[in-house]
Amino acid sequence: MAWTNPLRDPRDLRLPRIAGPCSLVIFGVTGDLAKKKLLPAVYDLANRGLLPPGFGLIGFGRREWSNEQFANFVEEHVRERCRTPFNEDTFAQLRKGLRFVTGTFDDAAAFGRLSDTVSELDRDLGTRGNHAFYMSVPPRAFPVVSRQLAACGLAHSTEGAWRRVIIEKPFGHDLASAKELDRVVSEVFAPESVFRIDHYLGKETVQNLLALRFANTMFEPIWNANYVSHVQITMAEDMGVAGRAGYYDGIGAARDVIQNHLLQLMALTAMEEPVSFTAADLTAEKTKVLSAIRLPHDLAAHTARGQYAAGWQGSERVVGYLDEKGIDPASTTETYAAIRLDVDTRRWAGVPFYLRTGKRLGKRVTEIAVVFKRAPHLPFETTATKELGHNAVVIRVQPDEGVTMRFGSKVPGTAMEVRDVSMDFSYGRSFTEASPEAYERLILDVLLGDPPLFPTTREVELSWEILDPIEEFWSTLGQPQPYRSGTWGPEEADAMLARDGHHWRMP
Amino acid sequence: MAWTNPLRDPRDLRLPRIAGPCSLVIFGVTGDLAKKKLLPAVYDLANRGLLPPGFGLIGFGRREWSNEQFANFVEEHVRERCRTPFNEDTFAQLRKGLRFVTGTFDDAAAFGRLSDTVSELDRDLGTRGNHAFYMSVPPRAFPVVSRQLAACGLAHSTEGAWRRVIIEKPFGHDLASAKELDRVVSEVFAPESVFRIDHYLGKETVQNLLALRFANTMFEPIWNANYVSHVQITMAEDMGVAGRAGYYDGIGAARDVIQNHLLQLMALTAMEEPVSFTAADLTAEKTKVLSAIRLPHDLAAHTARGQYAAGWQGSERVVGYLDEKGIDPASTTETYAAIRLDVDTRRWAGVPFYLRTGKRLGKRVTEIAVVFKRAPHLPFETTATKELGHNAVVIRVQPDEGVTMRFGSKVPGTAMEVRDVSMDFSYGRSFTEASPEAYERLILDVLLGDPPLFPTTREVELSWEILDPIEEFWSTLGQPQPYRSGTWGPEEADAMLARDGHHWRMP
Repeated sequence: MAWTNPLRDPRDLRLPRIAGPCSLVIFGVTGDLAKKKLLPAVYDLANRGLLPPGFGLIGFGRREWSNEQFANFVEEHVRERCRTPFNEDTFAQLRKGLRFVTGTFDDAAAFGRLSDTVSELDRDLGTRGNHAFYMSVPPRAFPVVSRQLAACGLAHSTEGAWRRVIIEKPFGHDLASAKELDRVVSEVFAPESVFRIDHYLGKETVQNLLALRFANTMFEPIWNANYVSHVQITMAEDMGVAGRAGYYDGIGAARDVIQNHLLQLMALTAMEEPVSFTAADLTAEKTKVLSAIRLPHDLAAHTARGQYAAGWQGSERVVGYLDEKGIDPASTTETYAAIRLDVDTRRWAGVPFYLRTGKRLGKRVTEIAVVFKRAPHLPFETTATKELGHNAVVIRVQPDEGVTMRFGSKVPGTAMEVRDVSMDFSYGRSFTEASPEAYERLILDVLLGDPPLFPTTREVELSWEILDPIEEFWSTLGQPQPYRSGTWGPEEADAMLARDGHHWRMP
Repeated sequence: MAWTNPLRDPRDLRLPRIAGPCSLVIFGVTGDLAKKKLLPAVYDLANRGLLPPGFGLIGFGRREWSNEQFANFVEEHVRERCRTPFNEDTFAQLRKGLRFVTGTFDDAAAFGRLSDTVSELDRDLGTRGNHAFYMSVPPRAFPVVSRQLAACGLAHSTEGAWRRVIIEKPFGHDLASAKELDRVVSEVFAPESVFRIDHYLGKETVQNLLALRFANTMFEPIWNANYVSHVQITMAEDMGVAGRAGYYDGIGAARDVIQNHLLQLMALTAMEEPVSFTAADLTAEKTKVLSAIRLPHDLAAHTARGQYAAGWQGSERVVGYLDEKGIDPASTTETYAAIRLDVDTRRWAGVPFYLRTGKRLGKRVTEIAVVFKRAPHLPFETTATKELGHNAVVIRVQPDEGVTMRFGSKVPGTAMEVRDVSMDFSYGRSFTEASPEAYERLILDVLLGDPPLFPTTREVELSWEILDPIEEFWSTLGQPQPYRSGTWGPEEADAMLARDGHHWRMP
């Protein structure tokens, strides 16, 4: 990871850094995340030469697998999902460090075997006591796993050997539970050893947002309340609740997406220039923004909830949320959430930030749209420009990563008609370099111990402080407003922006 | 023409206005400009429904042609060059108004016949005494033609009937000759009846420059000395002197292009927002800029001249300027000129404007590049960004009309490398509407009497006041520095920018 303090690391930032000797232990290695993302990402890092030669990967799970069987399982999923070409030599090298430990989380003996396996890697592969533990498991399992790791002596870094723990969202479901979770983890791991993964922050475009803002001259002068009308941050999914019904019901869209991804994107969009791109300096700026966020006084007017009804996803007829398998037919869980937030700083006073997310929307897209005020005066007749929209800079996070700028241009012809046009910059078309998967970057960051893209405890708590009053207000309401699957959400979300004189972008 | 004062013309600007009853008289109708540009433009205007039904077009020349023969001549060149499809009905309608008058400029009787023909059109086609005279002839013919028009009573507008004269550059070859030319023309025509054509100002992109700057929010805040490093205005030709040797030798690149096209482009780039897009308001702002232009103290350091030597144009071997047919082998005429100008206003103090033009350069391109300063601070290591250029907004005037923005973007990958990328907006790809030819717009503007894109006498004089000291200085030097055909000009032009710490863009 290259956003390092130059005083600490004089190496050329253009050369990716290579992890030192270490291993990665994955709890929940047979789960979807491990199969689809983590194992392919480890392979791709190895294939890119970014892992040390003696890298160990230990799976922990209930299956009665030999190391050989585990290796076959890893190979199967790597072959299926790897981003870089499958290379027999790379995998053969990786295979030497693959181990499997059979056990359940309450089985102390299994953790004893894990400890032995870790020691064996130190001895055989030279991993030197450096081990990262990836908790790809439900949060309710964090306490027991953490305590088992502590009990068998694996949790504590020592002089010259580090231990790190990686946890995935949800980081609690409100402020109280987040604090409890943090208490449990921090009983065992030191704060600097805890890495909270928000995979959105590993995406190229999110990092490019920082490059765009701070490596260029032309964006910062207009990136403030003098010129910006409002900001829209959207994460839309076309899928429904799919296989996540058990987790999702009772949690909902705001806790699932706004609390983590969207508030982090908002912080990166709104923050002041950091002193450097080190973890400490980036976190300081993100924390400042999150601290300065103000909730609307009238939550009924400036938030919106929805729940998808039956409709169409593409050409497929789909059922409503309440008819999904595993969902309580009387559930009041929202599958769409939109909120307005303000930032009480000189830079942003008076500029609403609209955050929205939802399932079964028109298409899958994540974007940050900075929408500018209209020109304060037009030296031509307004009739010629009545269809003229606002200028906008749109950072497209997915699926087509890039930047779009929208502005008014003269329509060819004898009259002076101005019409909105767009210019696009596409990552895929502009660079021959392929974008690494977010998990490649984030796993490497953990192994390097360089966490600029990971939210801190304080950021997580601030995010819950923002969301809790909204959730509390929503809990006093009845059923969320239904919206037809395949549309852009409930009517009350449109009304919410219309109240401010704006409308949602159609991404 | 639609950039009108809303108080004066309440019509919707999006609807092109249609010329009222009138005729156009072309002197020099058998010349290249008439054949290639003027006649096709008249036809295209007719085909677009922008000419009145009873429109007259009178050719004046030495040929002993009948109206019929003239009509065949017009048809031949319209068919060859028209932009819109050739439509038999349109041409049949246009043909009814075609007349030819045989004569030379010193033949008073011929002008008498012209006057009769004009009266005949008034009677037969209802042109109501409205007539425009297009001087597509060398400037030395202006005095005699003007006086003949005056003598036969054609030059003066009367209550309810207008007379207008259109003159093409060169508007003199220095301040004194420009004033003399103006004196001659204004003896005969009132100032508001004189239309000086600069066909560059009829180009869509030039007009779009005004829309870009003033219909949008995001450009004006950075369009000043706080953010702009310098501006480069380039008109490059790949051709040599071609058939223009007789005119060009002794005139040179600066008089031929900088005095008119490039200074007008500079004025539109640098001017303050006009109160409206009427001729008077636009001219007021252009005039202010031209008045505020300051020449460099050290002309040797901040101007450059060149003369093309033999080389290649594409795959064709071409001779040097001194070996061109019709060129004095000892000619000191420059075929490349570059000058630095400053604008002494609060907006532009300290921002150099570099104007360059030349023949036999790398390719044919005209563009205005606004180059921004680097970001004042970069929160990442400079090693990662050492190849990072300046941000730029480039208005591409020809051949591929549009806008390019250059900025730094993160290179995909694990390291924080920033590299310059571009986003483009192309007129041709963004609009289904085809761009009219510059002459269509400009001829229609004359017939409508709406001259916002035509430079005034004052602007012409200010331009010569800028150029005269440079020409005077150059006349004390010997031979211009030779440059190989197909390259980007003489070394001294590169040295001129290097002195200021800049370099020419490669368009």
